Amino acid sequence: MNDVKEVLGFYSSDIIQVIIDELSDINPKDLQDASIYLTKAGGKMLRPCLSLISSEAVGGKKEDAFHVGAAIELIHTFSLIHDDIMDNDDMRRGMPSVHKVWDDEMAILAGDTLFSKAFKLIGCSAKNGATPLQISKTLDTISDACIKICEGQALDISFEGRYDVSEEEYLEMIFKKTGALICAATKSGAIMGGADEDIIDIMYDYGRLIGLAFQIQDDYLDLVSDEESLGKPIGSDIVKGKMTLIVVNALEKANDEDRETLLKILKEPNSSDDDVDIAIEIFNKYGAIEYAHNIAQNNVDEAKQLLEILPDSSSKATLELIADFVLERHS
Amino acid sequence: MNDVKEVLGFYSSDIIQVIIDELSDINPKDLQDASIYLTKAGGKMLRPCLSLISSEAVGGKKEDAFHVGAAIELIHTFSLIHDDIMDNDDMRRGMPSVHKVWDDEMAILAGDTLFSKAFKLIGCSAKNGATPLQISKTLDTISDACIKICEGQALDISFEGRYDVSEEEYLEMIFKKTGALICAATKSGAIMGGADEDIIDIMYDYGRLIGLAFQIQDDYLDLVSDEESLGKPIGSDIVKGKMTLIVVNALEKANDEDRETLLKILKEPNSSDDDVDIAIEIFNKYGAIEYAHNIAQNNVDEAKQLLEILPDSSSKATLELIADFVLERHS
Repeated sequence: MNDVKEVLGFYSSDIIQVIIDELSDINPKDLQDASIYLTKAGGKMLRPCLSLISSEAVGGKKEDAFHVGAAIELIHTFSLIHDDIMDNDDMRRGMPSVHKVWDDEMAILAGDTLFSKAFKLIGCSAKNGATPLQISKTLDTISDACIKICEGQALDISFEGRYDVSEEEYLEMIFKKTGALICAATKSGAIMGGADEDIIDIMYDYGRLIGLAFQIQDDYLDLVSDEESLGKPIGSDIVKGKMTLIVVNALEKANDEDRETLLKILKEPNSSDDDVDIAIEIFNKYGAIEYAHNIAQNNVDEAKQLLEILPDSSSKATLELIADFVLERHS
Repeated sequence: MNDVKEVLGFYSSDIIQVIIDELSDINPKDLQDASIYLTKAGGKMLRPCLSLISSEAVGGKKEDAFHVGAAIELIHTFSLIHDDIMDNDDMRRGMPSVHKVWDDEMAILAGDTLFSKAFKLIGCSAKNGATPLQISKTLDTISDACIKICEGQALDISFEGRYDVSEEEYLEMIFKKTGALICAATKSGAIMGGADEDIIDIMYDYGRLIGLAFQIQDDYLDLVSDEESLGKPIGSDIVKGKMTLIVVNALEKANDEDRETLLKILKEPNSSDDDVDIAIEIFNKYGAIEYAHNIAQNNVDEAKQLLEILPDSSSKATLELIADFVLERHS
């Protein structure tokens, strides 16, 4: 666990530098400050680090993926800023969100600016020796992920008030909303590292599998973590009536009475702690938490198996560690 | 005039088709509808047509610039959707704006989706034979324009309530907000048409000059057009207290008394028709309208001169016509 956090810290310092350099010429200053704010607030930087490590794991250098890693992080940050406006979330990374420090207008613009800068950065990979073909392939990969992120957010919004979401619909939504950028990170890292097409595809699949596991684990942590690690109350997804794999599975399996009880709690905007406990009891009764956790674990195992084709290296070992970390983390 | 509108109609049908094809797979349907809405509402399509015509004028085919033209139009549309949220503008292209038909959330997402699709389309140019190098150069050009669009909008917002904006600041703002995408359109058309670097630079400058003239003319039309052609009341910029080149110039030249009168009208949120007439009188007294019009005319003349280096062709003649059209249009 600590190993992974140390590794991410090692790679992320380079990415932060690329980002800060790229954002330092934004004018007016207000827009620059709003654009750089969440990067300065810190974050796990899992996605961009995956780009750098993927580049190394396929035989390239971490420098090959500096710009594309920074681009991935900017796209992640852009989506957080816009999502926080849409979801009216006041806090992000332990600080007031961008639209709270400034306003919605500035937050929309800061997001748009980061989005633009991300695509600028893809082109900047040429400075580290990327060929036009590598840049063009990365452009396809990352723009495709951006489309999916928007679709995923729209699907997520469309699920509000719907309690008949199927497992397939749910998995499509989280793949688009969370998984797509993670597999764009590993794939574009592999492209920049000079991998062949079949290895690029494998790195994409590795990213897809750990990306899905990552989101399922997020939903799981909401129920089993402690408030301090999580930075928000336990069961907040239940209070919000959010559809998660656990909820979808429990609603599918429950008898009529339990289903009614669970639906009532999900629809109630001010669910109490007792309500949350009852919901968790229902999840446990039908093995829904275990079911979701098993799917996540299977994804992680499959992701690690995919890596076997790569030659042994410390970067390959790190990718294996990261796959495990996705399920071992507490926040 | 009619010639130009016919020409734009001729080129734009191809672009609309590319856009509709590209947006037709967006899921969920609500997001697709919101994303495609303004394209269906119609528009001049000046920017994408400039890409196609520029490609032809440098010796390429219009097909070479199909995807990049569609990308430019999507970026223009994205910026309109987000600007309308920020400026709380309820109407666009004679119809309720996207955030009015749906809501702010969907409008943010529709804009983001168009932005993503635009970058996807740049990569699709490969289908029409674009090389990775052409795609990479176009990526640089268009991402750079996107950054400037965001900066221009932020500068425009920062001018609100400021009445000491200099001509230089104003010109920087309109270059970024309006000019940058127009010169990205002509430049990327030239890149896709296979032009050499010096011709690409000239096409960029042509776009920059007519882009500035275009925005100055917009400000001019607000004062001298008729309400029916313009689709909004005459003098609406004065009522909004907006800084334009005409206002900046008049404030610079006016004596203390006229300056005070003009500032009072600009600061008054409910200026009457009489107030608008008084403001226009002050503009005329100091030759501010003529001053702005002359700058726009000089830009157009210079833009046309730049084209002389190109071999004669109907596309070159069209670019000359478009330069004139920028100042001859009434809406």
